[in-house]
Amino acid sequence: MKTVYVNAAFFTMNKKNQIFENGMMIVENQSIVYIGQHDPNKLIDIDQVVDLGGKWVLPGLVNTHSHVVMTLLRGSGDDMLLKPWLETKIWPMEKQFTTEIASTSAQLGILEMLKTGTTTFSDMFNPNGIDSDEVIHQISKTGIRGAFSQTIFSSETRMEQKANFKEAERFTKKYKMFAKGRLTTMVAPHSPYACNPETLIECVRIAEENDVGIHIHVSETEGEILEIENRYDVRPIEHLRQLGIFERPTVIAHGVFLNDEERAMLNQYGVRVAHNPISNLKLGSGIADIVSLLETGVKVGIATDSVASNNNFDMFEEIRTAALLQKGIYKDPTKFPVQLALSLATRIGAQAIGMEYTGSLEVNKKADFITINPYNKEHLQPISQAYSHLLYAARGNDVCDVYIDGKEVVKDGICLTIDEERVIAEANELKGTLSS
Amino acid sequence: MKTVYVNAAFFTMNKKNQIFENGMMIVENQSIVYIGQHDPNKLIDIDQVVDLGGKWVLPGLVNTHSHVVMTLLRGSGDDMLLKPWLETKIWPMEKQFTTEIASTSAQLGILEMLKTGTTTFSDMFNPNGIDSDEVIHQISKTGIRGAFSQTIFSSETRMEQKANFKEAERFTKKYKMFAKGRLTTMVAPHSPYACNPETLIECVRIAEENDVGIHIHVSETEGEILEIENRYDVRPIEHLRQLGIFERPTVIAHGVFLNDEERAMLNQYGVRVAHNPISNLKLGSGIADIVSLLETGVKVGIATDSVASNNNFDMFEEIRTAALLQKGIYKDPTKFPVQLALSLATRIGAQAIGMEYTGSLEVNKKADFITINPYNKEHLQPISQAYSHLLYAARGNDVCDVYIDGKEVVKDGICLTIDEERVIAEANELKGTLSS
Repeated sequence: MKTVYVNAAFFTMNKKNQIFENGMMIVENQSIVYIGQHDPNKLIDIDQVVDLGGKWVLPGLVNTHSHVVMTLLRGSGDDMLLKPWLETKIWPMEKQFTTEIASTSAQLGILEMLKTGTTTFSDMFNPNGIDSDEVIHQISKTGIRGAFSQTIFSSETRMEQKANFKEAERFTKKYKMFAKGRLTTMVAPHSPYACNPETLIECVRIAEENDVGIHIHVSETEGEILEIENRYDVRPIEHLRQLGIFERPTVIAHGVFLNDEERAMLNQYGVRVAHNPISNLKLGSGIADIVSLLETGVKVGIATDSVASNNNFDMFEEIRTAALLQKGIYKDPTKFPVQLALSLATRIGAQAIGMEYTGSLEVNKKADFITINPYNKEHLQPISQAYSHLLYAARGNDVCDVYIDGKEVVKDGICLTIDEERVIAEANELKGTLSS
Repeated sequence: MKTVYVNAAFFTMNKKNQIFENGMMIVENQSIVYIGQHDPNKLIDIDQVVDLGGKWVLPGLVNTHSHVVMTLLRGSGDDMLLKPWLETKIWPMEKQFTTEIASTSAQLGILEMLKTGTTTFSDMFNPNGIDSDEVIHQISKTGIRGAFSQTIFSSETRMEQKANFKEAERFTKKYKMFAKGRLTTMVAPHSPYACNPETLIECVRIAEENDVGIHIHVSETEGEILEIENRYDVRPIEHLRQLGIFERPTVIAHGVFLNDEERAMLNQYGVRVAHNPISNLKLGSGIADIVSLLETGVKVGIATDSVASNNNFDMFEEIRTAALLQKGIYKDPTKFPVQLALSLATRIGAQAIGMEYTGSLEVNKKADFITINPYNKEHLQPISQAYSHLLYAARGNDVCDVYIDGKEVVKDGICLTIDEERVIAEANELKGTLSS
C-alpha cells in the first residue's frame, strides 16, 4: 500500500528545518519513502492519493516524560507543598487504583495526547495492584507509539523487593519489542531518593541483559540534592554515575538543578534530559537552565509530566512555555528560538528517548505526522507567519488529523481508536469511587 | 426583557468565590438582578428561559492591557532583541498602517478575544495615519466592552505635539462615554521614556479635565530604569509621581522592575498594575514579582499585551502562566492559588481598569459572562475538579457562549458580531500589502 499526501505545507523538522510549501509525501509500509516538492512523476504506482487541502503538516510531537495512568488525578490537590500533596492526596488515591482505573486513566490521557498531536510518549507507571499486561494491551489499541515503563521503588522487605525485580524483568522482556515495535519499555527506577543503591544496580543489570534504556527522575528539587548529599556525600548525578546507571542509554526526567560539572558529565555519558517546564513551575521546583544544557551538547526533549502537576498534555503549550522561560531567565529574546524549540518537541525529543526512527518527516522515518488547518483559526493569522504560530500561538486542539505508522488515529479532531464518550463517562464514574 | 439562565454551575468570582452548582441567574436591562441557587419562585414574570445544559458559567475575562490594532503583526519578528525588533520590524510596518488595516487588525484581534472568553479589554493604539473614529466605530460593532485609548508620544516638533494633544483631547471627550457606556477611553502617554515631562503633564491635564484615568507602560525593562535614572536622577515610578500622574486613577502596564519602596508608593496612590507575564518573558524583559505586589495591597490585572509579543489573546493561558511563574520563582506551589489567579482575570482585573461594574456574577453587575461545556472535553476530566481545570487545564477555545451586556456575541464557538471568514480573508490580503 503506497499513499501519497499532496497539497500541504510540510514542516519536515529535519536538520535543515526544511519546509516544502506545496509539498508531497509518500508513505509505504508505515514509513516515509518520499518527502519533497510536489512531483507529478512520483504519482505512478500510487494506491491512494490524499489531498490535505492546504493544511500544515508536522511530525507528530514527542512527549518524553509522562504518567498517563495518573490522568484520573488531574486537579486533585493543586497549590500544595510536595510532601503533603504526595502523602495526603496522590499516594492514598494511587493505592486505591484497580486495573480498570489504570486502563481508563491511561486511555483518557492518551486520548488527550493523540488529539493534541502527540504521537510518541515515554511513560512511567506504578504497577502496584494492577495488571500491567491489561493496561499495556489497552494502550496498544490506541495506536500510540512509545515506551511504557514500570516504576521501580525500593521496598521495605527483601521478599517484596525480589518480587518487584522479578516482575520488572518479566515486563521488560515481554514488552521491549511489542506491537510490532510500536511499543517498547525501559527500566525505570523512580529516583535516587526512592531507590537504594542495591535497587539501582539491579536496574542496570535488567536493562543491560535486555538491552533497553533507563528512565529515571533526577535532580528535580533542591531538597533532593540535599538529601542525596546527606546520604551519600555526593550529588545525585555523581551518585548515579558511580552506580553504573549511565553505562546504559539513560534519559533523566527534570534535571532542574545541575551545575557545569554535572552538565559536562551528562554530555560525556550521552545522558538525555526530559525537560518538564510546567510541572517544575507548578510544584515550585524551579526553572531548569536548558540553554546551558544544550550548549554543553546534551540532547533535551520536552515533556508534560503527569496531569496531576501540569494539568494537561498539550505539548504546544509545553514547548511554548519552555521557550518563554529561557528567554525570561536569560533576559534575552534571542535564546531558544522557534526552530530550536520545535525541534526539541520532535526530532531531538525522539532522539532523547532513543527513537530516532520518528520525530521528523524524512525518508525511512516512521510515518508519524499531524495536520493543522489554519484557514479558519483567527489566532493563526496572518497565515504567512506559520513557523512562528506553531510555537507561539498554536494550541493542542488546533490539530486536525493524526497519523502513526501511516495509520490515521485522529481524523478532523475525532479519535478513531478510542471511544471518547465511553472513556470520559467511565473516567468520571471511576473517579467517584476514589476517596481522597 | 427579563431572561433567566438555568441548569448550570455558576462560578461567581465574587469575594467569597461562591459557586452555585445547580444555580440560576436572572438578567434584566443588561444587568444581573439575581444570582444564586435555583429558585422556582423566581420564574414568575420571566420573558425567556435559557437552559444552559449543565455548562460552567464564569464572568467574562478581563484583559487589562492590549494593542489590538497590531494584531496583523502577529509573528512578524520573534526571537529578536527589543531595539532591532521595534526599529526594523514593528515600527516600519506600523508606519504603513491605513485605517482599513487598523480596523481589520482590531476586528481580527477582538474576534479572537471574544471567542476565547474575553469580554472586557483595555487597549492602547497608535493613531498616526489612521481615522480613529472609524476604528472605534468598527470596535463598537463587535459588542466588546472596554477602554480604547490613543497612545501619546512626545513629538519632534512643537506643532506636531500641539496637534497630537488636540486630537487626544477631542478623542477623550468624544469616547469617554461611548456606545451607552460600553466603550470608554483613558489618556495613554506611551511611557516615561517616550514622553517628556511636558507631555506627561499635559496628559494629566487632559485626564483631569475629562475625568478619565491614565494608562501607561512603566518599568518594563531594566534598560528603561537606567535610562530614566540617567535622564532624571530618579526611577520611573518616582518620576511619574513627581509629575502628578498618580493624582489620576492610573493603571501601569508591566511593572516588572519594582522595589519595595515603589510597591508601597503604588499602593499609597491606588495605582493598579496590568501584569503581562508572557510578553515579559518573550521580549526577555523578566518576571514581575506579583506576589509581593499583591501583598503590598496593589490591585493587579492580567493582560496579554499585543500578539506581536505573545502571540495570542488566550487569557486562560495568560492566567495559568502568571500563576505558574510565581510558584516557580518563589519555589513554593502554595503561592498564587487557583481562586486568586482567576479573580485577577475577572473581578480584580475589572477593578484594576476602573470597571468595577463587570468582572463577577453579582447582582447589579453587567451581564458579561461566558460558558464552557466540559462534558465532551477530555482535558477537563474528571469533571468534579472544575475549579482546578479552569486555571490549570482549560484553553481559550473551550469557551462555548459569550454574553456582554446580556447580549450573546458568541454562540457555540461562532462569533455573531464579526464575519469571521471575511475578517480572516481581509487580514491576509492586507498583510500582503505590508513590506517588512
